[in-house]
Amino acid sequence: MQPVTEDNITELAVERWRTAHDPRVAELMAALVRHLHDFAREVRLTEAEWAAAVRWLTRAGQISDDKREEFILASDVLGLSMLVVQMNHRLDPVATPATVLGPFHIEGSPELGFGGDMSDGVPGTPLFVHGTVRDLDGDPVAGGVLDVWQADTEGAYESQIPGLDEARLRARYTTREDGSYCLRTIVPRGYTIPMDGPVGDLVARTGISHFRPAHVHFLIDVPGYEPLVTHLFQEGAEYLDSDVVFGTKQELVVAFEQREPGATPDGGTSADPWVEARYDFVLQRQA
Amino acid sequence: MQPVTEDNITELAVERWRTAHDPRVAELMAALVRHLHDFAREVRLTEAEWAAAVRWLTRAGQISDDKREEFILASDVLGLSMLVVQMNHRLDPVATPATVLGPFHIEGSPELGFGGDMSDGVPGTPLFVHGTVRDLDGDPVAGGVLDVWQADTEGAYESQIPGLDEARLRARYTTREDGSYCLRTIVPRGYTIPMDGPVGDLVARTGISHFRPAHVHFLIDVPGYEPLVTHLFQEGAEYLDSDVVFGTKQELVVAFEQREPGATPDGGTSADPWVEARYDFVLQRQA
Ligand SMILES: [Fe+2]
Ligand SMILES: [Fe+2]
Repeated sequence: MQPVTEDNITELAVERWRTAHDPRVAELMAALVRHLHDFAREVRLTEAEWAAAVRWLTRAGQISDDKREEFILASDVLGLSMLVVQMNHRLDPVATPATVLGPFHIEGSPELGFGGDMSDGVPGTPLFVHGTVRDLDGDPVAGGVLDVWQADTEGAYESQIPGLDEARLRARYTTREDGSYCLRTIVPRGYTIPMDGPVGDLVARTGISHFRPAHVHFLIDVPGYEPLVTHLFQEGAEYLDSDVVFGTKQELVVAFEQREPGATPDGGTSADPWVEARYDFVLQRQA
Repeated sequence: MQPVTEDNITELAVERWRTAHDPRVAELMAALVRHLHDFAREVRLTEAEWAAAVRWLTRAGQISDDKREEFILASDVLGLSMLVVQMNHRLDPVATPATVLGPFHIEGSPELGFGGDMSDGVPGTPLFVHGTVRDLDGDPVAGGVLDVWQADTEGAYESQIPGLDEARLRARYTTREDGSYCLRTIVPRGYTIPMDGPVGDLVARTGISHFRPAHVHFLIDVPGYEPLVTHLFQEGAEYLDSDVVFGTKQELVVAFEQREPGATPDGGTSADPWVEARYDFVLQRQA
């Protein structure tokens, strides 16, 4: 019988988890055991702290449902989500950089034409976002689909509003032959992460700002190119320096210009003042 | 605006969590961020693996309830629980060593006298456990309470059986003036951890045995002494070498001797064959 001691417990546990049938699972579990034990040893974790961690994890699972993902939020505020994005998308510096997907993407958004309004019926200042999608050489990417979603001016995404029966502030747009796209929405605002769960409790015990700066989400997945999950942020927005999920990048910050009533980028005219944001996405071909 | 990169994200996240108002929370969170990021970098965690981890954690929370603690089980099988026990109970080598509490302890067990039967009505072979509780110098600890609990021969603890209205296989015994104690129960058997949840799914993907060797749980919390949470294991039991929660220690393994009908350690007699286990607990005075 092998005596278990403070000194050998980590090696014993690592050896055991190395018996996983799949070599990648064995690698992941052995490394997880080692880092978890290293953490506990380094901070000399007490039994009360261990018990508090168990309660915290249980509560995070129990507050989660099909509209709320507390463990994604936890990963986001710990900077882990952004680290995983960076490691898995080491793109050319010329390419548009990736950022976090977040928990609010919904599959199967309606397809809208050039300049179509994804904010139909939702109050806010009209915003046109337009530009091109090109490759690293500057050649247009035609027929590429931009999947776009955002929160309303209260910070609510569609999945956070119960009882909706049609798509709200989300749509898919297809680039034209010259790579151009144009979407219509409303000007987004910064919003707070949900603060009524275990992640919020933890953030509230720190000096961390719990807000995200105003942004619109994009998923651009064109065959032959690296899929791009990213946001566009409003230049000058609050919280750009302190995004609680570490998602901001200088290359993704865009001027939102105030425009008088008149001609709009979709080829129409607006009777009201509107806002214009121009952005050219650059995709990298898959190796 | 501080650009977030694969290289600086960890330092940015550590700095942020260092703003926790309580210095211990700051220390814990900063170390947690660092070790979590180190793990992700070392294994070059993919987005699919990250998403699988989020689903696993959520499921572990959701399968937990007042009778089931999946995160304690996870900590147990990763060797973390035993590491935390060891770090927090660095006892004199002469003292009885500690092991894991496990998720099945219930407060407020009934008090029984010397030799009282905590297995009343539960089928099994009678087992008398008796001996003394002493300090490091060999002096008896009088009036010390032993809180004892165990599983039935099917491996079920009281909290796993719905609808019970009285204590089952658990009781509190008090040492006499000479430090002696005597309890009556049934011979325990090895049992499997619950394999129908996310921890079981993970264990099933490895060569790890999912059993615990036969044992009886003790919690001995006497004022002035280090509280002792431990088990006694049956010598020669199956799984002593492979306890899935790393809880076995040579010093806690006790001979279970077969006895013929006749006089028993409680001062009575047994008409049936019975089993005897002798164990002397040694407590360490608090510093
Ligand atoms: Fe968002
Ligand atoms: Fe047990």
